Amino acid sequence: MTNPPISRTERTTLKRLPKRGSYDRELVHAILDEGLLCHVGFGLDGSPFVIPMAYWRIGERIYLHGAPVSRMLKELRQGLDVCVTVTLLDGLVLARSAFHHSMNYRSVILFGRAEWVEDDAEKLAALDAFMDHVVPGRAAEVRPPNPAELAGTLILAIAIDEASAKVRSGPPVDDARDMDWPVWAGEVPLHMVGASPKVSPDLRVERPVPAYARDYARSRRGLG
Amino acid sequence: MTNPPISRTERTTLKRLPKRGSYDRELVHAILDEGLLCHVGFGLDGSPFVIPMAYWRIGERIYLHGAPVSRMLKELRQGLDVCVTVTLLDGLVLARSAFHHSMNYRSVILFGRAEWVEDDAEKLAALDAFMDHVVPGRAAEVRPPNPAELAGTLILAIAIDEASAKVRSGPPVDDARDMDWPVWAGEVPLHMVGASPKVSPDLRVERPVPAYARDYARSRRGLG
Repeated sequence: MTNPPISRTERTTLKRLPKRGSYDRELVHAILDEGLLCHVGFGLDGSPFVIPMAYWRIGERIYLHGAPVSRMLKELRQGLDVCVTVTLLDGLVLARSAFHHSMNYRSVILFGRAEWVEDDAEKLAALDAFMDHVVPGRAAEVRPPNPAELAGTLILAIAIDEASAKVRSGPPVDDARDMDWPVWAGEVPLHMVGASPKVSPDLRVERPVPAYARDYARSRRGLG
Repeated sequence: MTNPPISRTERTTLKRLPKRGSYDRELVHAILDEGLLCHVGFGLDGSPFVIPMAYWRIGERIYLHGAPVSRMLKELRQGLDVCVTVTLLDGLVLARSAFHHSMNYRSVILFGRAEWVEDDAEKLAALDAFMDHVVPGRAAEVRPPNPAELAGTLILAIAIDEASAKVRSGPPVDDARDMDWPVWAGEVPLHMVGASPKVSPDLRVERPVPAYARDYARSRRGLG
């Protein structure tokens, strides 16, 4: 079963460096599945806003959540146009010339309008998927949401209909005349890794540090 | 010499969880100095856009750069309202209840309009500061920008006048009734670290991997 590419629109078409752009659905999904934070942009009262938020993906939608009293979520729920961007920084590109320095990254930009997820069973399934996205394996261990908490969680979904990925990878590309410049050139790969977990000072049950917390690494390609 | 706090405005005032907000100039600077990517938001043709970009700080301004033909930069140069957000993800907060899971982070949100940096000497100094921000120590080693490259680099500055920081740190905060739930609780600190540098396949000068590339870690607090 092949996954059809995402349709291209005026605002998802890269004007510069078009070879870095992609409408491949699997690539878009892989980037979304590896990231933990998105940046949500919208206009309100004539001003642009960019807010960092956790997110997760189920199928062809991404999800956001928060408190029902959040003004931003209330506005998004009303159908405000939104742009959601996820960026994974993969490395620094150190060229011979200052000019050709760059960064390797994978990003997704997604345009749409939020739909309100109202059904309780759908909300519970979505919150389980959220936990699985951030800390795979933990959803079954924690105290699940009770009705009051579920009512106190607003969940919004945005379809992955109008989206594109952008990727830069590989070594620096220097000018031929700079090849003898006496400086090291190459890539410094960057990864998001977990350090030693810190136990909660008020933990009073006897539980070892779970494997998912001990060896947390969110950066490896192919995760998710 | 004390650094006065940043003035608060309607759009930088946190409505929810106001104790997480700060207008402390040193905190805002420290977050900006540790980050490598910002997300730049603006409205264009009735649509919101959020674009990931490198940035750096000099004094009370942050800087963006790109190609003069970039449509986005052209629009920003004309004085489009912009919102720039920098987010550092510091860790996962694993609570006993699904509901109280959270993330530790430090973020800055900055509103303003871009000023065009036109003077060549100022542009060169800004680009040196950019290199120092991303890879401290490398600016003096690389081939500096030539006049054509300098002309081919558009630099914009945005004053840190209307900005705020937001921080969550520390362990999970669970409900008293959940304290005996049989699950580990605590924090998983997250860090951005450099892996083994990859030498450029076309490197033909004899240069060892520089220390700044071998031990690159951008996550430690207090850096910058």
